[in-house]
Amino acid sequence: MYDLIVVGAGPAGYTSALYAGRYDLDVLVIGQELGGLCNEAYIVENWPGTKEIEGQELTRKMKEHVEDIGVEVVENEVKKVDKNDSFLVSTEDGVFESHSLILALGADKRRLNIEGEKELIGKGVSYCVTCDGPLYRNKKVAVIGGADSGLKAATLLAKYAEEVHVFEATDEMGAEKIMLNRCRENEKIDLNTGKAPERFVGDEFLEKIVFEDGEEVEVEGAFVEIGSVPNRSIEYIGDQKLQRDEQGFIIVSEDMSTNIEGVFSAGDVTTASNKMRQIVTAAAEGAVAAFSAYKYVGEKKI
Amino acid sequence: MYDLIVVGAGPAGYTSALYAGRYDLDVLVIGQELGGLCNEAYIVENWPGTKEIEGQELTRKMKEHVEDIGVEVVENEVKKVDKNDSFLVSTEDGVFESHSLILALGADKRRLNIEGEKELIGKGVSYCVTCDGPLYRNKKVAVIGGADSGLKAATLLAKYAEEVHVFEATDEMGAEKIMLNRCRENEKIDLNTGKAPERFVGDEFLEKIVFEDGEEVEVEGAFVEIGSVPNRSIEYIGDQKLQRDEQGFIIVSEDMSTNIEGVFSAGDVTTASNKMRQIVTAAAEGAVAAFSAYKYVGEKKI
Repeated sequence: MYDLIVVGAGPAGYTSALYAGRYDLDVLVIGQELGGLCNEAYIVENWPGTKEIEGQELTRKMKEHVEDIGVEVVENEVKKVDKNDSFLVSTEDGVFESHSLILALGADKRRLNIEGEKELIGKGVSYCVTCDGPLYRNKKVAVIGGADSGLKAATLLAKYAEEVHVFEATDEMGAEKIMLNRCRENEKIDLNTGKAPERFVGDEFLEKIVFEDGEEVEVEGAFVEIGSVPNRSIEYIGDQKLQRDEQGFIIVSEDMSTNIEGVFSAGDVTTASNKMRQIVTAAAEGAVAAFSAYKYVGEKKI
Repeated sequence: MYDLIVVGAGPAGYTSALYAGRYDLDVLVIGQELGGLCNEAYIVENWPGTKEIEGQELTRKMKEHVEDIGVEVVENEVKKVDKNDSFLVSTEDGVFESHSLILALGADKRRLNIEGEKELIGKGVSYCVTCDGPLYRNKKVAVIGGADSGLKAATLLAKYAEEVHVFEATDEMGAEKIMLNRCRENEKIDLNTGKAPERFVGDEFLEKIVFEDGEEVEVEGAFVEIGSVPNRSIEYIGDQKLQRDEQGFIIVSEDMSTNIEGVFSAGDVTTASNKMRQIVTAAAEGAVAAFSAYKYVGEKKI
C-alpha cells in the first residue's frame, strides 16, 4: 500500500513525487511514457537557471532526483483505477494500491482532422520534430501552426531541411517574439499567415498540402504543431466520473483537488494549465498537488 | 524607456524577467539584494531536477540566464515609484522609466517582537543561519521555530554547534517529515514543542532564553526561524495605494495583476504565495506575471 500513486511522469508528475517524497509519503510514479510531452521538446530554454537543456535530459534529471529520495518510478500503462477504501491502480504488471492519487496525465499533440492526415502519419505527416526531423535532411518541409511550438519546430527543422514553410491558419503568428525574430533571421524559414490546410495529398508518401484557399504546396514532410489536447486515458475512478471541462481538461480547484475525494491533478491535463502551459508552471502545480495529497493522507491516517 | 521593470531579484523576479525577455520586451531588473531570500537557503533540495544546490548558486544561475538573453540587472534600492503615462522608478542612481511593472519584492524574516530581541541582534540573536551559523562552532545554540526553515537551520547549525535545541511554540513541529526524521537522527539536535520564548536575556551578548512557562535555557546563539513577512518597501505607485491583505501580502488576481493598471506582482510578497511559499511556485508566478505584462504592453503600444 502506497500513500500516493502519481500517474504520469512529466515535470508535473515528477515534481509531485519530489514534494510528496520529501513529506515522507510512500510514493509510486507510474508513467506510460517517462518524461511526457517535455521529452519532445528539443531544447528547453526557459527552465529558470538553465540556459538550455534537452527536454529528455531535464526529465531524466527529475527522475533521478525523485529516485534519489526513495520514490519508485515504473514505466507502465494504467488500464483502470478502482476504488474501495483505497485506490486500486491496474496495470499489465499488476495492481498497485494507494491512499491517494495525483493524475499528471499530460497532453497529447492536437490533430488537424483533415483528409489524408491519418493515412499519411509516418509517411510524411508527423507530430514530433525531435523524433522525425532528421529524416528530412535537404528536403522541403512544412510546419502547420505558428505558435511557439510551431516556430520552435521550424528552427529545429531548418538544421536539416532545405526549406521550411510555416503555415498559420489565423492572421497572426502566436509565438514569442524572440522565436519570431529567430525565424525571420533564418533564410531557410518562410512564414505564412492566413493559410489553413484543407487536405494532405500523396499516394504512398505525402506529396503536397492543399489549402482552403485553393493553393497547393509541394512538400515531403509536414509537421503538425497546433497545440495539445488533454490526455483522456483515465475517465473514471471506480464508478465516479472525473470532472472535465468542455475541452477535456480535468477541473481542479486552487489546491489541485478534483471532484473525487483523494484524487488530485497537476500539469497540462488540468484546467489550471489553461493559464499557461509551461514546464515551470506544471512543476509548481505538482508541488501544490503534493501538499494537498500530503494533508489528505495525514488526515485519513489519523 | 523600458517595456518592463521588475523590482526584486529572487526566483520570482528572475523568472519574470526570463519570460518577459523571451517575449522580446526590454526588461530591467532592479534588486536591492540580488537573489532575495533564496540566498539565505543554505542548500536547496527541492528545485526539480537538481538534487542539491546552494540558494546563492541557484539565483546566480538565474541571473546569468536572464542576462544571457539581454536583460539588464542592477543592484539598487527603489526609493519611490511615480506614475504619469509610464512608471518612473527612482533609485539612488537615477530614475528608470517603463511601460509596466512587476513587483517581486519578496518577504523578510518574521521577528518574535519579544523583550531583548532587538537589543541582542548581532550579539547572539540572528535570523540567518547561512550568514551567522559558523560563528557558533562548538557552542550551544537554539533555533526558535519548528517548521521547515527552523529544522533546516537546525541541521545546518549541527555542523558547527555542539548542541542545537529547537523550540516550537505550538504543539507540533510543522516541518516536512523528511526534515523531522533527519533532525531526530541527529544526536546533536534536541526537539521541543509547546515552548514559546518570552524574552532574550544578556548583558552584552545573549546568555539565556526565558520561556513563557518560566523555564530558562542558557545558549550563546538563538536563530529565529518563524516564517516571513511580505516586504513593504513599496506601498504607493504615484498616489495610488497598492492593495494588500491584512498581513501585508499584495493582493493579486489569477493573472498576477494588482489593483493598479500595468502593475503586476509575483512570488513571496503576493497573496498567491499563501498557497505555498516555494522557489518553484514563486518562479511559476513570475512566468504568469510576465505573460500578463507582455499582453498589457502589447495592447498599450498599439
